[in-house]
Amino acid sequence: MEIPITKAAEMVGGECVGGENFVVKGINALDQAGPSEISFFSDHRYGDRLKKTKAGALLVSGINEEFNGPQIITANVALAYAKIAAFFAVPPTRYPGVSSDAVIGGDCRLGEDVSVFPMVYVGKGCEIGDGATLFPGVVLDQGVKVGKRTVLYPNVTVLRGCIIGNDVIVHAGTTIGSDGFGFVRDGASSVKVPQTGIVQIDDHVEIGANNCIDRAAFGKTWIKEGVKTDNLVQIAHNVVIGEHSIVVALAGISGSSRLGRGVMIGGQVGINDHTEIGDGAMVGPQSGVAKSIPAGGIFSGTPAVSHRTRLRNAALVARLPQFKERLRGLEKKVRELEDRLDENGE
Amino acid sequence: MEIPITKAAEMVGGECVGGENFVVKGINALDQAGPSEISFFSDHRYGDRLKKTKAGALLVSGINEEFNGPQIITANVALAYAKIAAFFAVPPTRYPGVSSDAVIGGDCRLGEDVSVFPMVYVGKGCEIGDGATLFPGVVLDQGVKVGKRTVLYPNVTVLRGCIIGNDVIVHAGTTIGSDGFGFVRDGASSVKVPQTGIVQIDDHVEIGANNCIDRAAFGKTWIKEGVKTDNLVQIAHNVVIGEHSIVVALAGISGSSRLGRGVMIGGQVGINDHTEIGDGAMVGPQSGVAKSIPAGGIFSGTPAVSHRTRLRNAALVARLPQFKERLRGLEKKVRELEDRLDENGE
Amino acid sequence: MEIPITKAAEMVGGECVGGENFVVKGINALDQAGPSEISFFSDHRYGDRLKKTKAGALLVSGINEEFNGPQIITANVALAYAKIAAFFAVPPTRYPGVSSDAVIGGDCRLGEDVSVFPMVYVGKGCEIGDGATLFPGVVLDQGVKVGKRTVLYPNVTVLRGCIIGNDVIVHAGTTIGSDGFGFVRDGASSVKVPQTGIVQIDDHVEIGANNCIDRAAFGKTWIKEGVKTDNLVQIAHNVVIGEHSIVVALAGISGSSRLGRGVMIGGQVGINDHTEIGDGAMVGPQSGVAKSIPAGGIFSGTPAVSHRTRLRNAALVARLPQFKERLRGLEKKVRELEDRLDENGE
Repeated sequence: MEIPITKAAEMVGGECVGGENFVVKGINALDQAGPSEISFFSDHRYGDRLKKTKAGALLVSGINEEFNGPQIITANVALAYAKIAAFFAVPPTRYPGVSSDAVIGGDCRLGEDVSVFPMVYVGKGCEIGDGATLFPGVVLDQGVKVGKRTVLYPNVTVLRGCIIGNDVIVHAGTTIGSDGFGFVRDGASSVKVPQTGIVQIDDHVEIGANNCIDRAAFGKTWIKEGVKTDNLVQIAHNVVIGEHSIVVALAGISGSSRLGRGVMIGGQVGINDHTEIGDGAMVGPQSGVAKSIPAGGIFSGTPAVSHRTRLRNAALVARLPQFKERLRGLEKKVRELEDRLDENGE
Repeated sequence: MEIPITKAAEMVGGECVGGENFVVKGINALDQAGPSEISFFSDHRYGDRLKKTKAGALLVSGINEEFNGPQIITANVALAYAKIAAFFAVPPTRYPGVSSDAVIGGDCRLGEDVSVFPMVYVGKGCEIGDGATLFPGVVLDQGVKVGKRTVLYPNVTVLRGCIIGNDVIVHAGTTIGSDGFGFVRDGASSVKVPQTGIVQIDDHVEIGANNCIDRAAFGKTWIKEGVKTDNLVQIAHNVVIGEHSIVVALAGISGSSRLGRGVMIGGQVGINDHTEIGDGAMVGPQSGVAKSIPAGGIFSGTPAVSHRTRLRNAALVARLPQFKERLRGLEKKVRELEDRLDENGE
Repeated sequence: MEIPITKAAEMVGGECVGGENFVVKGINALDQAGPSEISFFSDHRYGDRLKKTKAGALLVSGINEEFNGPQIITANVALAYAKIAAFFAVPPTRYPGVSSDAVIGGDCRLGEDVSVFPMVYVGKGCEIGDGATLFPGVVLDQGVKVGKRTVLYPNVTVLRGCIIGNDVIVHAGTTIGSDGFGFVRDGASSVKVPQTGIVQIDDHVEIGANNCIDRAAFGKTWIKEGVKTDNLVQIAHNVVIGEHSIVVALAGISGSSRLGRGVMIGGQVGINDHTEIGDGAMVGPQSGVAKSIPAGGIFSGTPAVSHRTRLRNAALVARLPQFKERLRGLEKKVRELEDRLDENGE
């Protein structure tokens, strides 16, 4: 697989400077690229690696005089890298057609060019869209819909009636549609509240490995278009996550909370139930969000407050040893003043 | 499926007021219920939804004058809702009998009316109780016991010799009986301590998705009757969790810790090893429990202290900017006093 | 299974005192051991259990006068216990050979004495070393290498091209080689950055249940020799974990971070991306590591600071109520001094 550098420049909307006959045969990090590969440079912390690189060409945001080979100049180097890497990337492994070692229930509708590996179980009444891939160990309960070109990696479980859109990726070991955690106390014991809703995942979503997305009590838990979750994320019943939001690993979002569009939730964050996170808000790692956050807010800490407030409080706590000294000094001076006044008064 | 409202009232031990010929055809949230469905109202924050609801009937704790349809009056609306929802809930999907695409080892005892899906693996010497359901991808190692009516959802693993009681639900992707995390340092490296015990899960327990419950080093890790765990919970070797306790998502309980009856552990809580949590204690979300907690204690923070103490400390930290101002003001005044005394002294 | 106590003493490099004809038939905890079993005593908190034990023999670090039976004296009781327990431990269940209910792709190389259970899927071009065990539900994508005597427990997924060394244990439900969490913003949406590297796991590593170890963007995510991870651990793309390091449950290590040799990461710790943790450093549970930590450092808190600093800060926060009283007292005295000076001045 290869692409002329002029074509690569076109692909990323960049300008090629020098060596227009260069043919790109791969893309790699500065310290790993070879003379037939292109690399990328945008972070000046890696200037040392640039000097030593053996890459044959470079993606840059401005001409780099220290590099002799051809360069593609582009405003967004990271995006250009992603695009060229996608050109070279090997697509996920596929199985040709539906394996006879898979089990497909009655009344299913399978699209064109689906790839169903051995050891897949598809319950009654499921729909699998054109070009979808189901890896070994995938289990679909009854009435599940999987969209076009969607990839479900090994050992993913999707329970009854859940709906997954087009061009979705679900990484291995993830559970979609498990019962929401709903119980009512009856004396000392807990009575289960039936969870009768579903999970709906819209197009272009990517869900990490070993996530849990619970079905709604009523209605749906809803992951909207373009959302990306990292590994080991917990999404409780009736949560709604707005378009293009990002949730980092080990975060947990409690029941009925609603995240707006383009929200960023850091790793290991916990969000209380019935909480609203406004569009574009960011929550720093390990924060505990007890109350709703307005659009555009940058919050952190437990309980989460505006990041600025938290930094101020942290700085004050760090200054407590000084405060202690100043208090002690003041107490001493006040005693001295009292003594002097007592002497004067005598 | 339908039930006369008078029967529904009986089922929940409530009193039906008005419209005694009404037939309930479903139950739903206030904003989703239709005219043949019953809904419920107990939280006055949702008064707006009540005004707009199209529900045909209502579960309430006292007559609601704004609602025209029949009402069932009951002390515990949430419990009544759970009971009526259970009446209407579709039970988990079942497979008729034991699939020929499942593998059942030698010396197994399968009860009446078990449901074993394709792609289930049952090792030698297992016992499966009457009415139990094993979804696809369930793996039972040798000598596992599964009780009556228990449901193991897809891709659940139960390792050697573990015992699961009656009416237990284990959600998808959960691992029961993995080795406890036990190592002894030998110079720079770690030597594995064999984990020879089991996990025992008693009746009416519900375990969330993608949990890990480790087998004991000796004896058993023990989840007692009626315990409910949320998703992605970690329970280490030799932990004991008392009856009807609740553990919320992403919490981790370290080795040999013992939780009493009716304990509530919040999401993302960490509990140190060899820690005792007394009956009825509550631990707030994201807390880190370093020391034992007495019965009935309400603790939070890292390290966890009584919730009252933590709130007081948090309030004092929030007042640090004022403290700083007061310190500065005092320093200024003391300097002025010194100046005045110096002048007087001259 | 049994071993003469003199042989057991030899096995652990200890000295046997008394009862040299004793035959050890098992090992157990003080409160569970019977008269034909050996137990161990090193923690004086358990003196009570020692008095009541029915164990027939004892592993100790020095002769215990209160115990009548034979004793093995050894410097490291815990290590001796681990070794004797390993002698008695039942090894993991094995399947004789390769099950006809497993699916093995083309061009695979299977070693001698491999154990491949039913419902295992092995993709094209995989290599399985001598004596390896693949439990039901294990899925290997194309080109995966599994070393000698390595055990993959049920429902473990290993994706394309990943390499697992010899004598490795991977517990149930773990995902190895899922895509790293790499996206580039393009306006409001996220563009996937292809993850073209692999995961390499070296010899004698043990990975807990339901872990996620992501493949590298380029090159490899690398878990070096002897590392042990607990359950539900997240290891992001391009992370390197040094030899014999330990990572406790629910910890998350962000992209490109590097842990040295013999590092200890507590439960629920979060580590920022591109962070270096020096050899032998320890990070306390629930800490949030924002910056690199030097070799041998002991850090805790969020953001993590040296454990000593954090304890000092915590002590100062706990003393805030006193500070408040002292401030109030000072303010009162200064007012009194001002009044006296005002009077004097008149």
